[in-house]
Amino acid sequence: TPLPCPKVSLLGAPFHFGQPKPGVDKGVAMLRAAGVVEEMEKLGYEVDDHGDLEFEPVENDEPVHNVKRPRTVGQACEKISNAVLKAAQDDNLVVTLGGDHSLAAGSLHGHKKARPDLCVVWVDAHADINNSDTSPSGNLHGMPVAFLLGLEKQQLPGWEWSTPCLKPSDIVYIGLRDVDAGEKKLLKDNGIKAFSMHHVDKYGIGPLMEMALDHINPKRDRPIHLSFDVDAMDPTVAPSTGTDVRGGMTWRESNYLCECLAETGLLRGLDMVEVNPDIGTPEEVKATIDVSVSLIRCALGDTLL
Amino acid sequence: TPLPCPKVSLLGAPFHFGQPKPGVDKGVAMLRAAGVVEEMEKLGYEVDDHGDLEFEPVENDEPVHNVKRPRTVGQACEKISNAVLKAAQDDNLVVTLGGDHSLAAGSLHGHKKARPDLCVVWVDAHADINNSDTSPSGNLHGMPVAFLLGLEKQQLPGWEWSTPCLKPSDIVYIGLRDVDAGEKKLLKDNGIKAFSMHHVDKYGIGPLMEMALDHINPKRDRPIHLSFDVDAMDPTVAPSTGTDVRGGMTWRESNYLCECLAETGLLRGLDMVEVNPDIGTPEEVKATIDVSVSLIRCALGDTLL
Amino acid sequence: TPLPCPKVSLLGAPFHFGQPKPGVDKGVAMLRAAGVVEEMEKLGYEVDDHGDLEFEPVENDEPVHNVKRPRTVGQACEKISNAVLKAAQDDNLVVTLGGDHSLAAGSLHGHKKARPDLCVVWVDAHADINNSDTSPSGNLHGMPVAFLLGLEKQQLPGWEWSTPCLKPSDIVYIGLRDVDAGEKKLLKDNGIKAFSMHHVDKYGIGPLMEMALDHINPKRDRPIHLSFDVDAMDPTVAPSTGTDVRGGMTWRESNYLCECLAETGLLRGLDMVEVNPDIGTPEEVKATIDVSVSLIRCALGDTLL
Ligand SMILES: [Mn+2]
Ligand SMILES: [Mn+2]
Ligand SMILES: [Mn+2]
Ligand SMILES: [Mn+2]
Ligand SMILES: [Mn+2]
Ligand SMILES: [Mn+2]
Repeated sequence: TPLPCPKVSLLGAPFHFGQPKPGVDKGVAMLRAAGVVEEMEKLGYEVDDHGDLEFEPVENDEPVHNVKRPRTVGQACEKISNAVLKAAQDDNLVVTLGGDHSLAAGSLHGHKKARPDLCVVWVDAHADINNSDTSPSGNLHGMPVAFLLGLEKQQLPGWEWSTPCLKPSDIVYIGLRDVDAGEKKLLKDNGIKAFSMHHVDKYGIGPLMEMALDHINPKRDRPIHLSFDVDAMDPTVAPSTGTDVRGGMTWRESNYLCECLAETGLLRGLDMVEVNPDIGTPEEVKATIDVSVSLIRCALGDTLL
Repeated sequence: TPLPCPKVSLLGAPFHFGQPKPGVDKGVAMLRAAGVVEEMEKLGYEVDDHGDLEFEPVENDEPVHNVKRPRTVGQACEKISNAVLKAAQDDNLVVTLGGDHSLAAGSLHGHKKARPDLCVVWVDAHADINNSDTSPSGNLHGMPVAFLLGLEKQQLPGWEWSTPCLKPSDIVYIGLRDVDAGEKKLLKDNGIKAFSMHHVDKYGIGPLMEMALDHINPKRDRPIHLSFDVDAMDPTVAPSTGTDVRGGMTWRESNYLCECLAETGLLRGLDMVEVNPDIGTPEEVKATIDVSVSLIRCALGDTLL
Repeated sequence: TPLPCPKVSLLGAPFHFGQPKPGVDKGVAMLRAAGVVEEMEKLGYEVDDHGDLEFEPVENDEPVHNVKRPRTVGQACEKISNAVLKAAQDDNLVVTLGGDHSLAAGSLHGHKKARPDLCVVWVDAHADINNSDTSPSGNLHGMPVAFLLGLEKQQLPGWEWSTPCLKPSDIVYIGLRDVDAGEKKLLKDNGIKAFSMHHVDKYGIGPLMEMALDHINPKRDRPIHLSFDVDAMDPTVAPSTGTDVRGGMTWRESNYLCECLAETGLLRGLDMVEVNPDIGTPEEVKATIDVSVSLIRCALGDTLL
C-alpha cells in the first residue's frame, strides 16, 4: 500500500489539566518510549518530530460557570492550535500524542485553519460536547467539541482565541456509550451523526465505517482528522485510562477502524489521547500502550496483507 | 425515547425447586439490592412493587415419570401465573425476577391469559422444552416451554391448572447452544424458530433481531414477553448461574438484544432468571448482577443516545 | 444432519522438527487423551485409527539455504503423504493430528493425489508460504504452502518426492495477521485469495465463509481439506501454541467456520496442528485442547440444533 503522504509531523502534548486524575500527561513519554517514532519510520515515513510542548498551570485559575481551570486549559489549547497549524504543511500528516482530550479543542482548531476542508472522526466512549451549561463535572476534557462547534455560549477566560471552526456535518462519532443527558440533547438539536456501541452491534464495524465516511466524506475527497480517545475501547483492551466504560470496542474493531481510515488515503490528522500510565497494573499499562501504538501504526497505513 | 407504557409491575419469585443447586432463589434479593426499582424509577416509570411471592416445598413430593418435585414446582408456577395475570393490567409492563427458569411456566401462562395476542422471545443457552419423556435430568427448569406449548403429554400432579397457551409460532429462541437430542427433535417436529449461537455468528445480532421479530411479530403489533435466562450470556459475562455453557452472547450483544425489544415499544413482560449468587467469586457474582440490571434497564428503554 | 461420509481415518503425526519449540509433538497424545476418537464415534462415524506415525531425526541434518532440518522434515512429510494417500479411500474423511504445520506439506500432497479435485481452506495466523529465499527463520512449519504450490525453487535434500500439487486457485486463507513481507509478495504475485482478520471484521464470519467457499468451490462439488493451525484463534482462546498472535479468531468464530465446512457435506480432510502442551499453564493447555476437540467435532458435523 502506498503511504498517503511522505511525512509525519509529531507533537507531544503532555497535558492533564482538562481532567482531575494525575498521570495522563505521562502518556506521551510512554508512547514515545514504546517506539512510536521508529514504527512510523519503519512504515516509510519521514518523521518531523516537534518534541513535546510545555504547559504551565495559570495561577489562581478559579472555576468559571462551573468550568475548572479554564485559563490553564485555554492557553494550552491555544498553544496546541498554533503548533498544529504550523506543523500542517504541504501534504503531511500531523500526529498529536496526549495528554487528555481537551487538547483536541486546540489540535482540531489549528488543523482546520490549515486545511479548511477537514472533516473529523471522533472515536470515544463519550461525546465530549458538554458546555458550561450542561457539564455535570466542569472538566474541560468533556467539552472540546462544544468549543469547536460554537456550542459554548459563555466567553470563558483563556478561550478568547477559540473561534468555532466545525459545522455539525463535519464530524461523526463512533463508540459512544456514556453520554450525559445534556449532551444527548445537543447531539439531537444539532443533527450530529453519532454511532454508539448499539450501532456497532447493529451494523457491524465494516458497514458502519462506510456509513460514517459516507456521512462526512461522501466523495472521499476531504482530508480526515481522527481524534481517538482510548476509552472508546473496552476496558479489557485499554484499561489504563481515566474514564473507562464497559461495553467498548474490541482490539480488532479498533484496529479495523484505523485501517479503514488509512485505506482512504485521506488521513491527515491524528490525536491519540487519554492514555494514563498511573492507572492499572503494569500489565494493564503495557496493554494500553501496546494497543495505542498498534492503532497509530494501522492509522498510518500498516496492513495485514 | 418515550416509554412504552407508564407503569411497571414488579414481582419477585425467589424460587429454586426447578433445579438442584442452592442459591438461585437469592437472585431476587440481590437484584433488588442492586437497585432494580430505583433504576426503573430513574427511567421514568411508576413502579408497582408487588413484593416477593412465597413458596413452600410440598411434602413427600416424590418424582413422577422422572420429573423432580412436580407438585412443589407446579403449585409455585400456578401462584406465579395468578400473580402475573393480576399484575398485567391496562398497558403496564410486568417484570418477574427469579429464581429458576421453571417460573416461566407460570409467568407466561398468566401473561398470555391477560394478553391473548402475546408473543415470546426466549433467550437462553437451553431450549427448556424437554418433557417427561425426553428430559435427561428431570429438572423442571428445563421443561417450562413443553408445558406452555402442550408438549408435556403426562398429567403431572400439581400441574392440573396448566393448560397449553402458546402455539409454536408464538415463540422464538435466541442463544441456544446446549440442546438435548430429544429437544432438537421437538423443535424440528413442531417447526419452532430457533436462533442458536451459530446463527448469531452467521447473521450478526443486528440482522438476527429483525429476523426474530419478523417471525413472531411481522406487523409489529403484538405485545412481547422476553424470558431471559442469564446463561444465554457467555460465562465470562455472567458466570454466576447454574448451567453455564461456553460460547455465549457477549455483554454488548445481550444489551443490544434488550435495546431492540425496547425500541419496538411492545415489550410488556420480562423474566430475568437463573442468577445464582452462591456460584462464583464475589467479583463474578457482582458481574452477573450488574449485567442483569443493565439488561433490565435496556429492555425498559434506556438508550446510549 | 446426515454425516458427510460413514468413516473417519485417523492419523497421528507427533512431529516437531518443523519449528524450534519442544512439545508440539505431544499435541497428538493430548488430543487422543481428550477423547477425539470417542467424540467421532458419538457423532456416528466408524473410526479407522491408523495410530501414530513414527519419525526419526536424520543425523547431520545441516541447514540448506537457511532451511533448518530439511532432510528430517522432508522424510517425515513423505511418510505422511504416503499414509494419507493410503488412508483416503472410498468416501472417507482423513483426520491428521499434529504436530507442527510442516506436516501439511505431506498430508495435502497425499490427499491431493488421492482426490485430484481437492481444494483447501487454510486457517492460520500465518501464511506458511515462505520459501528458502524469503523465510526469515528457516523453520519449515512456515513453508509448507510454498512446497505445495511449487514456489520453492531450490531442490532441498529430503524433498525430492515433493511435486507441486496445488494451483493458487485451489487454496483460500482465513485468519491471517502475521505475514512476512516476502509472503505478502508471494500471495499477491500468485493471486492467492486470503482473508485476513481485517476481512473477518469487515464482512463478518458468516458472509466471509460464503465468499471463501465461492472462491475455491463455486459449484460446491469439490472435496475440501481444512488445514487448521490453532494459532488462527486468539491467544485468549488457544494460548498453548508456539507462535501466537493477538487479534485472532474467537471461540465462536472458529467453531462457526468448522460448522460451515461441515454443512457443505464436502469436507474430506482435516489437519489439526500446532497444539503445544508444553506452553502455558495447565488451564491454558486444557483450554487449547478443549477448543481443538470442539473444532474437530464441529468440522465432523456436530450442530447446535
Ligand atoms: Mn472518553
Ligand atoms: Mn474523549
Ligand atoms: Mn439456560
Ligand atoms: Mn432457561
Ligand atoms: Mn500459524
Ligand atoms: Mn501454520
